Amino acid sequence: MAKMKANVFYGKNDIRIEEVERPRAGVDEAIIRVTLTTICGTDLHILRGEYPVKPGLIIGHEPVGVIEELGAGVTGYAVGDRVLVGAITPCGQCRACLSGQLSQCGHGEGYEAIGGWRFGNTINGAQAEYLRVPHAQANLAKIPDELSDEQVVLLSDIASTGFSGAESGHIRIGDSVVVFAQGPIGLCATAGAKLMGATLIIGIDGDDNRLAMSKRMGADVVLDYRAVDVIAEVKRLTGGGADVAIESLGTQQTFESALRSLRPGGTLSSLGVYSGKLEIPYDAFAAGLADNRIVTTLCPGGKERMRRLMEVVRSGRVDLTPLLTHTFPLEKIADAYELFGSRRDGVLKVAIKT
Amino acid sequence: MAKMKANVFYGKNDIRIEEVERPRAGVDEAIIRVTLTTICGTDLHILRGEYPVKPGLIIGHEPVGVIEELGAGVTGYAVGDRVLVGAITPCGQCRACLSGQLSQCGHGEGYEAIGGWRFGNTINGAQAEYLRVPHAQANLAKIPDELSDEQVVLLSDIASTGFSGAESGHIRIGDSVVVFAQGPIGLCATAGAKLMGATLIIGIDGDDNRLAMSKRMGADVVLDYRAVDVIAEVKRLTGGGADVAIESLGTQQTFESALRSLRPGGTLSSLGVYSGKLEIPYDAFAAGLADNRIVTTLCPGGKERMRRLMEVVRSGRVDLTPLLTHTFPLEKIADAYELFGSRRDGVLKVAIKT
Amino acid sequence: MAKMKANVFYGKNDIRIEEVERPRAGVDEAIIRVTLTTICGTDLHILRGEYPVKPGLIIGHEPVGVIEELGAGVTGYAVGDRVLVGAITPCGQCRACLSGQLSQCGHGEGYEAIGGWRFGNTINGAQAEYLRVPHAQANLAKIPDELSDEQVVLLSDIASTGFSGAESGHIRIGDSVVVFAQGPIGLCATAGAKLMGATLIIGIDGDDNRLAMSKRMGADVVLDYRAVDVIAEVKRLTGGGADVAIESLGTQQTFESALRSLRPGGTLSSLGVYSGKLEIPYDAFAAGLADNRIVTTLCPGGKERMRRLMEVVRSGRVDLTPLLTHTFPLEKIADAYELFGSRRDGVLKVAIKT
Amino acid sequence: MAKMKANVFYGKNDIRIEEVERPRAGVDEAIIRVTLTTICGTDLHILRGEYPVKPGLIIGHEPVGVIEELGAGVTGYAVGDRVLVGAITPCGQCRACLSGQLSQCGHGEGYEAIGGWRFGNTINGAQAEYLRVPHAQANLAKIPDELSDEQVVLLSDIASTGFSGAESGHIRIGDSVVVFAQGPIGLCATAGAKLMGATLIIGIDGDDNRLAMSKRMGADVVLDYRAVDVIAEVKRLTGGGADVAIESLGTQQTFESALRSLRPGGTLSSLGVYSGKLEIPYDAFAAGLADNRIVTTLCPGGKERMRRLMEVVRSGRVDLTPLLTHTFPLEKIADAYELFGSRRDGVLKVAIKT
Repeated sequence: MAKMKANVFYGKNDIRIEEVERPRAGVDEAIIRVTLTTICGTDLHILRGEYPVKPGLIIGHEPVGVIEELGAGVTGYAVGDRVLVGAITPCGQCRACLSGQLSQCGHGEGYEAIGGWRFGNTINGAQAEYLRVPHAQANLAKIPDELSDEQVVLLSDIASTGFSGAESGHIRIGDSVVVFAQGPIGLCATAGAKLMGATLIIGIDGDDNRLAMSKRMGADVVLDYRAVDVIAEVKRLTGGGADVAIESLGTQQTFESALRSLRPGGTLSSLGVYSGKLEIPYDAFAAGLADNRIVTTLCPGGKERMRRLMEVVRSGRVDLTPLLTHTFPLEKIADAYELFGSRRDGVLKVAIKT
Repeated sequence: MAKMKANVFYGKNDIRIEEVERPRAGVDEAIIRVTLTTICGTDLHILRGEYPVKPGLIIGHEPVGVIEELGAGVTGYAVGDRVLVGAITPCGQCRACLSGQLSQCGHGEGYEAIGGWRFGNTINGAQAEYLRVPHAQANLAKIPDELSDEQVVLLSDIASTGFSGAESGHIRIGDSVVVFAQGPIGLCATAGAKLMGATLIIGIDGDDNRLAMSKRMGADVVLDYRAVDVIAEVKRLTGGGADVAIESLGTQQTFESALRSLRPGGTLSSLGVYSGKLEIPYDAFAAGLADNRIVTTLCPGGKERMRRLMEVVRSGRVDLTPLLTHTFPLEKIADAYELFGSRRDGVLKVAIKT
Repeated sequence: MAKMKANVFYGKNDIRIEEVERPRAGVDEAIIRVTLTTICGTDLHILRGEYPVKPGLIIGHEPVGVIEELGAGVTGYAVGDRVLVGAITPCGQCRACLSGQLSQCGHGEGYEAIGGWRFGNTINGAQAEYLRVPHAQANLAKIPDELSDEQVVLLSDIASTGFSGAESGHIRIGDSVVVFAQGPIGLCATAGAKLMGATLIIGIDGDDNRLAMSKRMGADVVLDYRAVDVIAEVKRLTGGGADVAIESLGTQQTFESALRSLRPGGTLSSLGVYSGKLEIPYDAFAAGLADNRIVTTLCPGGKERMRRLMEVVRSGRVDLTPLLTHTFPLEKIADAYELFGSRRDGVLKVAIKT
Repeated sequence: MAKMKANVFYGKNDIRIEEVERPRAGVDEAIIRVTLTTICGTDLHILRGEYPVKPGLIIGHEPVGVIEELGAGVTGYAVGDRVLVGAITPCGQCRACLSGQLSQCGHGEGYEAIGGWRFGNTINGAQAEYLRVPHAQANLAKIPDELSDEQVVLLSDIASTGFSGAESGHIRIGDSVVVFAQGPIGLCATAGAKLMGATLIIGIDGDDNRLAMSKRMGADVVLDYRAVDVIAEVKRLTGGGADVAIESLGTQQTFESALRSLRPGGTLSSLGVYSGKLEIPYDAFAAGLADNRIVTTLCPGGKERMRRLMEVVRSGRVDLTPLLTHTFPLEKIADAYELFGSRRDGVLKVAIKT
């Protein structure tokens, strides 16, 4: 039986590169040979025991690769096609998907919270030589020849998520937008705000490297929360509060600051993953009377989303390669986790080559 | 090899009930035993040679039935389940479907105009004892026990289409809405306008029977175009023009009258199937400067749409059975076509029992 | 100098009917002789010292009356016209108003949180014989002859607010909606959900009288939180969670229950006025990953909103008079406050005649 | 009585610079001393007798100036403030304005088609030394000090119109957009498409100068209709049809080509001013079954719109000064009309200095 190398999670701080059985494609499935993947902040949470997955699972959810095998029912593809697959793999055929809420896919049944996220969560993931793709017809996005693996790998999750922060905020031409936290997702939210026509984009962080990258990704102004009263400064710059605030970290402080940065009628677009209780001070949104909206978004997926995002890259509107600061072979993925977790060395995202 | 009875189209004015081979389910498909179906205006166009389909095709596209066989890849259903299937059978997994435009489904590829309509158009249809359902996972909607076949059969096409006229018009609480033509689809558009909160609904037709039914389906006022200047009267009743005009016939006259009935900024929601050249007199929409919208909609399909529409019926908000004026067995479908085409006898829709 | 009677707030539990100076109309203003008004829950908060207004202010914000005087710049009206004025009186000409956010009106400048609410808050209110209406051109809505004062007075605030809960929730045909609390606003939210095409409306309260009225206003099912586990029951009835939950009380418990009642991707439409810290348990919205939306809405105002709501009443779609359970003359308004505050005697809303 | 110079229309091909009475500000009005204005294509239509205005009217509708006088009821401004005023001057207080349809303003009453356009149409316009601004509170937009008159004058009409073509088309990140005609409005539509995140923008014209400018304003590809089959090429480049087509000329040919360039489900956003009958070939939108939308838009106005557009310029996202190819003093406006009408000399827009 054919074998492959994969990064298997065994428990807190315990991941191991192992030889495991290579997957085969069932009905409506495909197998891809992974050529490039990366590590997500969520993978760090898994490694640290903060997000529970089943021991023995291969983790990772951002695959670029080449089609190796196609199951029955998958048409219009050929073995050898180079494809990008989203971190979220909707079935396209359940109640949630047919309602347009692909990320809450119920896999044939109704809605399932975060149900669209399966790779490295409920099924084997992308930090491996081969990957089984469910609902392949809906999830294999062919990569145009002129785009490299490195140019597209971040579209699978962080760019799709970051841009969605701008999209869910319904940013309009002439809007002022403040983005809290300029990690990889926040940087992509900043780029998304610019893509949609915001004309005053304020990036907030406390890391010089990330503030510099924020300007590169589209921020008009960056604010260092170590140095200034961020809320007061946003209100001054925007003449009373931002039209849209994007939260991209997942803490009480960034959430509350985002809410307090809004003008009446403004929208808080939340991308962070929260734990514990989130508090909404009643004065932060005028006791519920300021016509504010709070919108949460999970990374959009599916092949059409990937196709659109590849068009963004192909057009030259956004270049994500500066975020890919380091590269490791799959065998050394433990080192990659260590670097990524430490935030040393200006690391933003690491590429994993297989 | 198993046989079944079916209504096969051979050419202009030539349909025949024949014994043909019973279909079998391939991957991602299902076979249903049809228990109730109906005849659509489009079927009349086919019979009259006005809409081209391939000779030898079984026609009809509004099936209620019982699952007989399930192909590989279809889960969550059992043989014997009673199901409603929409006239439009999206795959859920192509570019169009993943963009939420299920009716323009490309079947795994990109967009295809009217591509969601396959039954009795590009594949065998529902006027038969058995029917093969493509993309079954996305298209089999279980019927709640408390609903009869008769209560749900019109949801497959005309109610889904009619309601969509109201939905695409973005009707809001307090809107005035005028619906041109009160045939089956126009009557459902009238019901849809009421469902969405329109508070002045004007039904227009030239047939007493249909005008009476229009009131029953929700019209506040009905106008007989044989007796009054419809546009002037709509302007008077609405204080300057309707917020939304729904066209449900497909002629130059109804289209143009709908456009002329609008207030500045109003929306024309078009459901009709047009032939020839449609003319837009420049004065009818202020030379393009009145902020008008013209929206066309093809019947929405897929199992989630069917589920929602069955909820409308189950809640008692709308009762469609008064539209089902006559019943015929499949063997006598030629008589049913004749009656339906003649508009004799107060016929609105005919039920076909198999 | 002309005098009038008015209900003046002096401090906690201290309101007095007094003779005060009658107002005169300045530029862009109008004076109306109030013929009918009512008491809002917010007025109770003022009386109890829970919402601060300046001592000496005439309170009340729901006026029906007759135009007595028109200031310069107000056209298209005549003295003697019977008018309804919204609780919210937008200027129509500031940044907020021109952006369509009339309730956050900045009165000529930018946005001001809750700035559209002026009557009985920052300027003299409606519990008086005469009332000065600011920005009169935008706020005087002529009452059709066939509608009585009693039929329209509740449109000024609670019906506009309640319906907005349904509108901000973007309810669609076939949605399931749960409404937490069936006081006057919750009852109007229930009616609004029905108006927009929800097909399963669940009204929640702990008062038999209000649960009975909930059914009358459109609830398909009512749940008594004293008797059942409301969240579990909503999930059972809706097959996994409501599409939209409307909060109409303003407490942690109703807010949190509303959030927990949603399906993934569902919308919480919040109408309540909150105090203290509101908590969002991270598990109630899947750590921010369930594509949920929380939308807050302040009562929409302006004459066009009032016109639309009067159309709802005129059409017979909704009858609000059952909510007007008691009537008092202005002189006895203290008794009316006492009854309204006590919730005795099945009171829902009280009419104040001047 | 004070006098001023103004460009007065007397009849076909008859405009004259004359000494006329200077206007004074009534209630809710302001007078501005015009410092810069321009000539619109619509002014050419007036001069050529193709659009009727009353003889004796001062024409022009794109004013930049300094406040000279403020009428009663106008607050928050001071004489001497430098302001931009939109071509469209909504009242903010009628049914249309309060519904958000400012361009169809009824001036205190209901909707009036194109009612928001008053300058140089129904009241005296901007090609004069002084201009009376109606509904001044809603229409005076202060110009930030760092922006010159030249940088903002085109925002009054053509940029607001052009961008609205993109906005009404609901362009999304990753969309393909084709813009028919690259005159001043089409060039701004091109810039608007880029601002909103379109990633394939195709500019179409038959003039080398305009095609070159199209690239400068944001087109990824330009097509010369003299050289290629435009529809076929758009279909090839977009893989089946554009998501959005913007029509910015107002002819049967551009309208029809725009419609034929769309994918199923695509949107035609129409900015042109049409005359005669417009024809919609039924095959161009699949007989009304392709889920297409046709949206027409009149230039959005009001001070908030102007503020937003000035933010676009201030941010550096768009620079409109390359479109301002020539400058004339008011006295020589006849020469400016002649040049602008002739399209000689690479003229795109002319600045008129007073």
